[in-house]
Amino acid sequence: MIYLDNSATTKPYKEVIETFSTVASTYFGNPSSLHSLGMQAEGLIGESRNRIAHLLGIKANEIIFTSGGTEGNNIAIKGAAKAKQSRGKHLITTQVEHASVHEAFSQLEKEGFDVTYVPVDENGMISVERIKNEIRSDTILVSMIHVNNETGAILPVQKIGELLKAYPQILFHVDHVQGVSKVPLDLKDSGIDLCTFSAHKFHGMKGNGFLFVREGLRIDALFHGGEQEGRLRAGTENVAGIVAMAKALRLATESASKSWQLEKLRQYLVNELTTLEGVVVNSPDDNVAPHIVNFSIPGVKPEVVVQSLTAKEIYVSTKSACSSKVSEPSRVLLAMGLSEERANSGIRVSFSYETTQTEIDQFISQLKIIIPELLEVVNS
Amino acid sequence: MIYLDNSATTKPYKEVIETFSTVASTYFGNPSSLHSLGMQAEGLIGESRNRIAHLLGIKANEIIFTSGGTEGNNIAIKGAAKAKQSRGKHLITTQVEHASVHEAFSQLEKEGFDVTYVPVDENGMISVERIKNEIRSDTILVSMIHVNNETGAILPVQKIGELLKAYPQILFHVDHVQGVSKVPLDLKDSGIDLCTFSAHKFHGMKGNGFLFVREGLRIDALFHGGEQEGRLRAGTENVAGIVAMAKALRLATESASKSWQLEKLRQYLVNELTTLEGVVVNSPDDNVAPHIVNFSIPGVKPEVVVQSLTAKEIYVSTKSACSSKVSEPSRVLLAMGLSEERANSGIRVSFSYETTQTEIDQFISQLKIIIPELLEVVNS
Repeated sequence: MIYLDNSATTKPYKEVIETFSTVASTYFGNPSSLHSLGMQAEGLIGESRNRIAHLLGIKANEIIFTSGGTEGNNIAIKGAAKAKQSRGKHLITTQVEHASVHEAFSQLEKEGFDVTYVPVDENGMISVERIKNEIRSDTILVSMIHVNNETGAILPVQKIGELLKAYPQILFHVDHVQGVSKVPLDLKDSGIDLCTFSAHKFHGMKGNGFLFVREGLRIDALFHGGEQEGRLRAGTENVAGIVAMAKALRLATESASKSWQLEKLRQYLVNELTTLEGVVVNSPDDNVAPHIVNFSIPGVKPEVVVQSLTAKEIYVSTKSACSSKVSEPSRVLLAMGLSEERANSGIRVSFSYETTQTEIDQFISQLKIIIPELLEVVNS
Repeated sequence: MIYLDNSATTKPYKEVIETFSTVASTYFGNPSSLHSLGMQAEGLIGESRNRIAHLLGIKANEIIFTSGGTEGNNIAIKGAAKAKQSRGKHLITTQVEHASVHEAFSQLEKEGFDVTYVPVDENGMISVERIKNEIRSDTILVSMIHVNNETGAILPVQKIGELLKAYPQILFHVDHVQGVSKVPLDLKDSGIDLCTFSAHKFHGMKGNGFLFVREGLRIDALFHGGEQEGRLRAGTENVAGIVAMAKALRLATESASKSWQLEKLRQYLVNELTTLEGVVVNSPDDNVAPHIVNFSIPGVKPEVVVQSLTAKEIYVSTKSACSSKVSEPSRVLLAMGLSEERANSGIRVSFSYETTQTEIDQFISQLKIIIPELLEVVNS
């Protein structure tokens, strides 16, 4: 099996699943219970929170455990907008966000907020100047993806964080789901107030994630109920999933020292793709993450390519997994100014630290067989 | 270890943890991915949905997977209120709901809804007549717990469902989290539109649950983003947790034929408690679930009892786990008209199908040692 769809989800580390099983069977108490079984479970959550905070250089009380990236983005965006609406109702985001950000903003528009969707250039890049120009006196939130999930483009969130330090009334949310362990992000003193993480994108378990909420910041909750997570996220904590996530983050962070190898692989793949007739690379050359490559075979339906490769046990994706069943052109590729034909035929390859050059070679070999066949069908 | 806090959380079945681990390691694809790994994961979710639907006598498309009971209650209540607010803004619930229902309604009050919190009698019981009298022309939702999580009182949700069939403009939500496998609930043709379930209350994994949403009913979502769960619950599905939950529900349902044994245990415990000086039983005699017994030792702080028992590896709780860290009298016991002293000293014992009479005997033996000591301190 050649798994090249790590931006959709990663295979959990074996040790992480083992940790999950041990915690689920041995430390099964409810962390809110007052007896020792509850206190043990609560202790494990506290330790996990400390470990994650240490890995990210933030404070333990800045971590809110969630059920994943979609929940994290929804809490951050809706929670910030609702909490600060008395100051203004203008929100800024980009045209290249994940569905869970894009749709959260669409929902806020229906509820009376005014949203500016800032366009990107042909490289999927946002200019700091452009963000600055969109700021109004009633702007309360800027939200932006760090590493684009379809193209790998790295948006200048650290620079925008610096810019926004001059606007203390504006909260800044970053969707870091695709960046973890691949593209560094410094949260401390960054101007970033809210930042979303999802465990299954770094070899943790599905159904887990966390949200960085800068110390002292109060935003509105989506769930109301118990006292958990500083009342920002009521509900019994997924103890085993949280402990497993802390372990996965440590292992993934340790891998990050090998990110130069991913970058070599990426350049190798891009070079190979460039030699193939009928193929155009959509990912930018610069300011791009080392693990995502997006390309099109204009005229060919990407679903057909995915299925042909599946038959050879090679797994890639069309656009974002969360949106892959909607047969529309990629919103992200269209925003980069690509033609509808090209935006309709995007294929995403995404590596893990386990991906090898041999696998890339096998992938390219298969493409060399498949593409001429498919183009012949199209042109006949 | 004598674990008598099954209403806070249950120990996951060993087979259920094994299923979780197998699915997490082998079928790790993103269910939204178009390739075969994604389709396998999607297939497992579909099978689980079918199995759960079969066990409950409902349709597969009436199940929305969630992260647990708190999320389920929040989606149901806020989603129904928001979706139907053009018809009216009056909501009915009771004074004895779980925090995740009570606080969801408090939040809706802040947003301009008008909520009636129907009182209960000294047995924690709601009268159908009383609910009927509270219905107004602008009532859009009735929400009620089935088995009270603190006392075990069974509210007449099937009768209220029958009543509400005459009011098609009113949605009916039931919180069945504590009832699963202990107190039957017929959802089919019941007048119930929405019903909440939580996996870790029936030996599944924390971080999983589902919401029954009657076919054809559209309510508002809390999360916006991907296309998952009919757009009512965006986000990558917790595949392993869902498959594990379906298995746990099957095993728990199979146990239900032994509920008469639980009822014998409950009667035995209540009889024993009645003989202890200083103890008063708070749970009702009739219309009560077979696995929950609530009692008070007036004047004695329940935390002290919990800790004394913990030292003997016997685990019980004060009130609801989700509210146990708030040192206020139990809202549920106060609503039953009990004195503040009694409501301040409630202790909850909750069985699983593994609980034995020997364990109850050991528990009672310990109480016989602890209670006189504690009462001596109080009276000295």
